[in-house]
Amino acid sequence: MVRLIEAYAEAVLATPDPESFVTARTDRIEVDLGGIPGDRHYGLMRPADVRYKHLYPRGTMIANRRQISLVSVEDNADVAGKLGVEAIMPEWLGANVLISGCPEFTLLPRGARLLFESGASLICEGENEPCIGPGEVIAEHCGGDAKLAARFVKTAQQRRGIVCSVELPGTIAAGDKVRIVLP
Amino acid sequence: MVRLIEAYAEAVLATPDPESFVTARTDRIEVDLGGIPGDRHYGLMRPADVRYKHLYPRGTMIANRRQISLVSVEDNADVAGKLGVEAIMPEWLGANVLISGCPEFTLLPRGARLLFESGASLICEGENEPCIGPGEVIAEHCGGDAKLAARFVKTAQQRRGIVCSVELPGTIAAGDKVRIVLP
Repeated sequence: MVRLIEAYAEAVLATPDPESFVTARTDRIEVDLGGIPGDRHYGLMRPADVRYKHLYPRGTMIANRRQISLVSVEDNADVAGKLGVEAIMPEWLGANVLISGCPEFTLLPRGARLLFESGASLICEGENEPCIGPGEVIAEHCGGDAKLAARFVKTAQQRRGIVCSVELPGTIAAGDKVRIVLP
Repeated sequence: MVRLIEAYAEAVLATPDPESFVTARTDRIEVDLGGIPGDRHYGLMRPADVRYKHLYPRGTMIANRRQISLVSVEDNADVAGKLGVEAIMPEWLGANVLISGCPEFTLLPRGARLLFESGASLICEGENEPCIGPGEVIAEHCGGDAKLAARFVKTAQQRRGIVCSVELPGTIAAGDKVRIVLP
């Protein structure tokens, strides 16, 4: 039996400035097997970072399974509420797609598929574990300090969205219906 | 906490005949981001088959996550016992690596990493669901009939091994120690 969730792509975003992870809204993105061409996370391979320290020496070139970052309206609102800030914008998290309509979005299992109405499809590679960078951007926008940034890292556990890689190259557009198929 | 299993690559195998899925033992295989160059399952992309019918029209070119097939000594022995045949050889299953030392190998979760002593590393993409082809090869070798082939498909559920894709290109050699790191 196939388990299916009907969700929406409320916004799609890309990085206009390759020096920063902060993203900006756009109408649509085109993805290929390496992710979003021109994006700072684009590539079939990437250097292993601290997330892989139990597996590979830092800098080892490995398959890139962190091509695209997705967050949800519901998870962001939950984290904002717990932090006591008005809102958390997907831009501040460096997200590429803002999803709505999928409860506990960050807990989607590895191997879940996200099929976008405009044609592209992604594979869930698991939770995007919160780190301090987005916390600092939130603090900057919300008049908070280093404590708020640190609180984000703890509070956003299991609420900071997922990373995906591309299964079917194509387009992801703002307003797309998204069929999420669980493995 | 990292959960780790110490296992072994008892044998490595490749397909000498691209018309058949049956494999033959070799000393070592070299893998890159598409799998085993020259192998019938090699490629960054593959056409979607019946396994993807709930996702894509047959033949749609998608990312290839079924590059390498791994089975285990223990799972094969279990299936052989239940079928009442002397042994099931990894060649008959079209396997590329025969693992030992990992209990319930087929149940490894998606995202588990297999790090081979000779340098390459693989990502588990999940269970390889049994189909009739290997069942027919088993029946042929064991003096069985179509019933034995069909019994294999049922009996080998959760015992037929896993499919992997390459995370770190390099070598996989017969006799390698394999560190299996659970997500």
